Amino acid sequence: MTHRNHEDNTSPTVAVLGLGPMGRALAAASLAAGHPTVVWNRTPGRATALVAAGAVLAPTVADAARRASVVIACVINYQAARAVLSSLGSPPRGPFVNLSSGHATEARDLATWAAQRGVDYLDGAILTPAPTIGTPAATILYSGPRDLFDDSLPALESFGGSSVHLGADAGTAAAYEMALLDLFTMSVGGLAHAFALARAEGIPPAAFARFARGIGDLLPDMADRFAEQLTSGTFAADISSIASAGSAVTHVVDAAAARGIETGPLRAVQSIIDRAVAAGHGGDSYARLAESLVPADHP
Amino acid sequence: MTHRNHEDNTSPTVAVLGLGPMGRALAAASLAAGHPTVVWNRTPGRATALVAAGAVLAPTVADAARRASVVIACVINYQAARAVLSSLGSPPRGPFVNLSSGHATEARDLATWAAQRGVDYLDGAILTPAPTIGTPAATILYSGPRDLFDDSLPALESFGGSSVHLGADAGTAAAYEMALLDLFTMSVGGLAHAFALARAEGIPPAAFARFARGIGDLLPDMADRFAEQLTSGTFAADISSIASAGSAVTHVVDAAAARGIETGPLRAVQSIIDRAVAAGHGGDSYARLAESLVPADHP
Repeated sequence: MTHRNHEDNTSPTVAVLGLGPMGRALAAASLAAGHPTVVWNRTPGRATALVAAGAVLAPTVADAARRASVVIACVINYQAARAVLSSLGSPPRGPFVNLSSGHATEARDLATWAAQRGVDYLDGAILTPAPTIGTPAATILYSGPRDLFDDSLPALESFGGSSVHLGADAGTAAAYEMALLDLFTMSVGGLAHAFALARAEGIPPAAFARFARGIGDLLPDMADRFAEQLTSGTFAADISSIASAGSAVTHVVDAAAARGIETGPLRAVQSIIDRAVAAGHGGDSYARLAESLVPADHP
Repeated sequence: MTHRNHEDNTSPTVAVLGLGPMGRALAAASLAAGHPTVVWNRTPGRATALVAAGAVLAPTVADAARRASVVIACVINYQAARAVLSSLGSPPRGPFVNLSSGHATEARDLATWAAQRGVDYLDGAILTPAPTIGTPAATILYSGPRDLFDDSLPALESFGGSSVHLGADAGTAAAYEMALLDLFTMSVGGLAHAFALARAEGIPPAAFARFARGIGDLLPDMADRFAEQLTSGTFAADISSIASAGSAVTHVVDAAAARGIETGPLRAVQSIIDRAVAAGHGGDSYARLAESLVPADHP
């Protein structure tokens, strides 16, 4: 931690390493906030618009980091983030904030590796797409040492919206990101599959959307209900039971199969439901499905 | 259509056939609306509370139907609904409204079969759980002859909320129900899987729910965006692309596998994404996934 500067009262100089769509959005937001901004990318040609907007293009990672009080990495995965850290030579003088995507174990491993090399490592996970960066709609989660988060905040706040520190464990932000991407991926898959089935049945997309919105409207309250029941460990089926979901999914699988639409995603959910019913949980609420998915030997 | 009475100005006498949780809710709502209500169930013992509330228990389907101006069937599936219709002997004097679950082809087949036997058949699909029946939260879709819907409406309105007639094709209500159950099942599966992954990572359920609500909040607008793009046939990835979803799901599959959580549902969605990318749609928006799921030979 000896390398860190406290620059709360001065504008940070921000290095953004990695200029994919998200990295470019981060650098643009940093510039828009008035922070001196240095950029670097592994392959050239991505920085033209940023340089025109005032960014300094650094020829190497080490050069970018040397100029900056906060280094932001936004590369394809943790392996690439480690390669970037390796090429620094000496630790950066300020926090190294890794916003690359990956899972919690990768984040913890890299945090340990970085700490062993004297790097002040903070992990982060961007929950919202690139166009939200620099707007109130952005949400970015952080985990790692609280003081590193506080020191980095003047730079991080330029990314817009909510900057949330979740705790000292470097893996926490990535853990949230993975679980939320899980829900998001399944929801997108569900939308795609449902619109496909509706279309195959001759239902106009706009007419279907009217009712599909209603299903979406149920989810926030269902999330709260899952949380209540998983916390209390009681699974009263006050609205619908796992058995009724099993009966419903059987009808839907038949309907999709009759229309030649792939049934893989539905059958995978059906198999989870069937196992819960076989284990005697058919009369319980949906939240029990989450509990039955976690391996029994989990702490 | 010769058997139908027009009773718009008098309270209908309603027969409810099938006394599972949904049938009991329908009969209770009918009684609460002040309609004379006759009930029947294949196995005895389900009608005690309804009889105490004023319902008449009929010994046979034919007896129940003979007493009623509108017959409501709510049994386990279309096969059971057909068995109920078969046991009527002669057609009921009013509409026969089948609210049993099944898919569109089953609904169309039963409508044809019923029409051949002189039954005034209306199909329906209940979108909301039993506790909503009789409250403003109920939504029930109907399809079949419009005049049958109009004639039945005094009885149907007692079930609460919205009674929506979708058109003359008897299969339409079931088609909507299946596509909406598809989305609902995938969403419940996604919630269960995401809460399981969060839990395995040590994230408290209530803390996770706070962010999971945010994913739910995205769905209504995503449904509208899917509808717009599927209607126009253009799939501009203005926010996120199928390729980026593919990259995300790979991380999530790894994270779930590392925690010993079943990856089947995620891999099934991943396989749909991968095929869309392989077909050259990686740069398109998620809505393209729906299009690529419908078989090419579909009209």
